[in-house]
Amino acid sequence: MDRKVMDREALLASVREQMPERRWVHTQGVMETAVILAKRYGADPVKAELAAILHDVAKFWKVDKMEAAIREEGEFVDVLNYDKELWHAHAGAYVSRRDYGIEDEEVLGAIRYHTSGREGMALLERIVWLADLIEPGRDFPGVDAIRGLAEQDLNGALVAGFDTTLGFLVEKKKRIYPLTVLARNDLLAEIENTN
Amino acid sequence: MDRKVMDREALLASVREQMPERRWVHTQGVMETAVILAKRYGADPVKAELAAILHDVAKFWKVDKMEAAIREEGEFVDVLNYDKELWHAHAGAYVSRRDYGIEDEEVLGAIRYHTSGREGMALLERIVWLADLIEPGRDFPGVDAIRGLAEQDLNGALVAGFDTTLGFLVEKKKRIYPLTVLARNDLLAEIENTN
Repeated sequence: MDRKVMDREALLASVREQMPERRWVHTQGVMETAVILAKRYGADPVKAELAAILHDVAKFWKVDKMEAAIREEGEFVDVLNYDKELWHAHAGAYVSRRDYGIEDEEVLGAIRYHTSGREGMALLERIVWLADLIEPGRDFPGVDAIRGLAEQDLNGALVAGFDTTLGFLVEKKKRIYPLTVLARNDLLAEIENTN
Repeated sequence: MDRKVMDREALLASVREQMPERRWVHTQGVMETAVILAKRYGADPVKAELAAILHDVAKFWKVDKMEAAIREEGEFVDVLNYDKELWHAHAGAYVSRRDYGIEDEEVLGAIRYHTSGREGMALLERIVWLADLIEPGRDFPGVDAIRGLAEQDLNGALVAGFDTTLGFLVEKKKRIYPLTVLARNDLLAEIENTN
């Protein structure tokens, strides 16, 4: 595959064929929401859309293929010790570079951390993380409150989103990725320091 | 102060005078519960009681005094970046050694990690952490379920306790100490591997 970034239509078609239709509908929702949030909070909407298109590209890959990509990249092998739910984000960032020629670290970071978050999230990472949680197809208790917050308080919406995520992981007796906690701690400190 | 361990009565009197009466009542509850749990799960009841006596010795110290102790020890200064609620555990472990002559690392660890927990908790650490949460004076939603679990499933009771702690921190918009999440992850993995 050509390592240069392919044109938008070819990219959409390539990503679409790697996932079931319902996930493609979700991806379109994330694209739309990420663009709105980027414009609202002063990020680059083109980068936001690009990260959104690719964020779940590896979501429906077989586990072996995700693991192989993560090991091939080599920098984030630790994630293999955590819930498989996190793997597709790292695998997705890796193939975005390898197969789709994306070299922009902001875009790659937004794909890589769209599930876990991390300490000191960049603006584009925050936008894609939140867009993934609140795109129009999402339906969970409290989602409308987070959508309301996202209208005017990006960090407040993120904290509320992380709270929901942690509550879910606790309830389901799932392991919690430390980066998720560090992401939330960092946002709380940032909110405290700006008040 | 003599660096040798003082006799039990003198130790009790010295700890008691550093806290209000209601905290002393709590400390007695933790002593009693820690001894029961130690006998139930094969830990040393004398060590469990000693850690319980001292676990909150620094709880009502002024913040400056806690911070000075943590800086004097020097090994866990990172905790100063987290909620003050965690400081007394580290300050308490440090003065247990410095002022009360405790050199037993198991006892010191049980004091040091009685609030945060940590990855790979020792048996005595588990017992004191849990005793602190479920001693007879504790009253919060779900405490009786955790007490029930503690009758026969130490790790299950610990996970339920960490879940409650995390839920509380999320609800109160407080920062979460990564060690707490690692403690819980580790217990979940241990439970998974023994089933």
